[in-house]
Amino acid sequence: MLRRTIAYRLELSVSSPARTAYDAAVEVTRAAGHVWNATLAQGWDVAGVPNGGYVLAVALRPLLAALDVPDPLTVTAHYLAPAAPGAVQVHVDPVKVEGRHRTAAGALHQDGRELLRLLATATDLARASGPRWVSAQPPAMPPPEECVPAAPVGEFRPPPITQRVEIRIHPAHVGFALGQPTGTAEIAGWVRFADGREPDTTALVLFADALPPPLFNLELPGEWVPTLELTVHVRARPAPGWLRAVFRSRVVEGGYLDEDGELWDSSDRLVALSRQLALVPCAA
Amino acid sequence: MLRRTIAYRLELSVSSPARTAYDAAVEVTRAAGHVWNATLAQGWDVAGVPNGGYVLAVALRPLLAALDVPDPLTVTAHYLAPAAPGAVQVHVDPVKVEGRHRTAAGALHQDGRELLRLLATATDLARASGPRWVSAQPPAMPPPEECVPAAPVGEFRPPPITQRVEIRIHPAHVGFALGQPTGTAEIAGWVRFADGREPDTTALVLFADALPPPLFNLELPGEWVPTLELTVHVRARPAPGWLRAVFRSRVVEGGYLDEDGELWDSSDRLVALSRQLALVPCAA
Repeated sequence: MLRRTIAYRLELSVSSPARTAYDAAVEVTRAAGHVWNATLAQGWDVAGVPNGGYVLAVALRPLLAALDVPDPLTVTAHYLAPAAPGAVQVHVDPVKVEGRHRTAAGALHQDGRELLRLLATATDLARASGPRWVSAQPPAMPPPEECVPAAPVGEFRPPPITQRVEIRIHPAHVGFALGQPTGTAEIAGWVRFADGREPDTTALVLFADALPPPLFNLELPGEWVPTLELTVHVRARPAPGWLRAVFRSRVVEGGYLDEDGELWDSSDRLVALSRQLALVPCAA
Repeated sequence: MLRRTIAYRLELSVSSPARTAYDAAVEVTRAAGHVWNATLAQGWDVAGVPNGGYVLAVALRPLLAALDVPDPLTVTAHYLAPAAPGAVQVHVDPVKVEGRHRTAAGALHQDGRELLRLLATATDLARASGPRWVSAQPPAMPPPEECVPAAPVGEFRPPPITQRVEIRIHPAHVGFALGQPTGTAEIAGWVRFADGREPDTTALVLFADALPPPLFNLELPGEWVPTLELTVHVRARPAPGWLRAVFRSRVVEGGYLDEDGELWDSSDRLVALSRQLALVPCAA
């Protein structure tokens, strides 16, 4: 009996490592029926506003719970108003809860106001199989130790979220932080959780909005690029380790811009594609 | 009095041209409250299944009516099951009905079954303004008269929708129709309404799914690429005339593929960006 207790305790300590900052920050609890409670944590923000990818990662969790599959496959969020750290409620509308591909809609509310509407189709990517053809290449860049961490440089102050999500920017793309935009709307870099938590498919949704906007490398005023809509395709479960990310804008026009992202894992697999529509700062 | 009557009749004939096939095919009527009726028309299908872009164009119209703005800005649809020609109902959920950017959700039902869930943010693009920076180029291809129309070629039979949406494929990309796939998942072509109706911002949503899937140019079996999710960013009102379209897949893996689209108007403006997640035929 003593031996069994010891074995059980050992197992617990193996399967329940210290809860990471990310796991704590995206925790949700069911309030009643299809309504869930969560808290947007401090420290995942840019200038006090919780990062859009982080808010989406929180809102997504009750949908995955309702669908009873582990992996988001394609997720779209429409951002209605900026969030603040603090309590939120997520309302889940289960649309299709059976079969290989399952769909749910959701809405995130704070202080009685809807901030985010989302739509997600999820699956079990462990069952994914099929022929492989890839035309894209991982972004070419120096190893993480030769890339530029988020740190005060000149007039640049990195946002608080960079304490949670560690980034290392391609040295050729850091001009925006030095008052010398490169003139091309592209930013590549390495990304991972700062506390060593390994990435999973829900973290890819957060990482898809975690680098500085590539727009910053154009000669435009403004420091705030509000996201109107973000869509992430999660294509595979990421291998452990650093991810490589690259974000590019194709068209800045009419006060709007697209931001197209790729996330590559340590095994050179393209694990997520993202695209967002955002507002150009001066038109916001 | 006679003259006024004649003038009035002339004006009517100018402002009310014969209703085009597209306008008839996307007509919706309010049934009650937020429920609208429509009919998925014959002839907009691929092998009997109404084209996904067409179904989305129909579902979008009640949302635009509820939001009282003319232009879809970013639209996402999740496809739950194939549609059939015939009666459908669209349920509208107005999320944010005031301000410059307005958002609504919707669901399209047929025979009591939900086939499509969508989310749209809309605006008035006539008011769009801001700095311009574009990194993309229109697809280089010969003029329409030197490109390949949809017609029976070898074993290839064009789908019925090509009678409504006229396409002319880049001669270098027609290998798929000749049993000689090019080996690269890319198809570019010209696109317009066959009856001369000029494009508008809702038609761009349809055109974003109207060319053959670029996957057809890979050596893979299957003729049916079911869309799981389609997102279209409408960036400007298109100028009259032919549009140039290019669709590319970046990653075919795990039974899924992305399909990334650009639509350029006759004034060389990138008027829409699209991306869909679809199922590889042999894994469907």
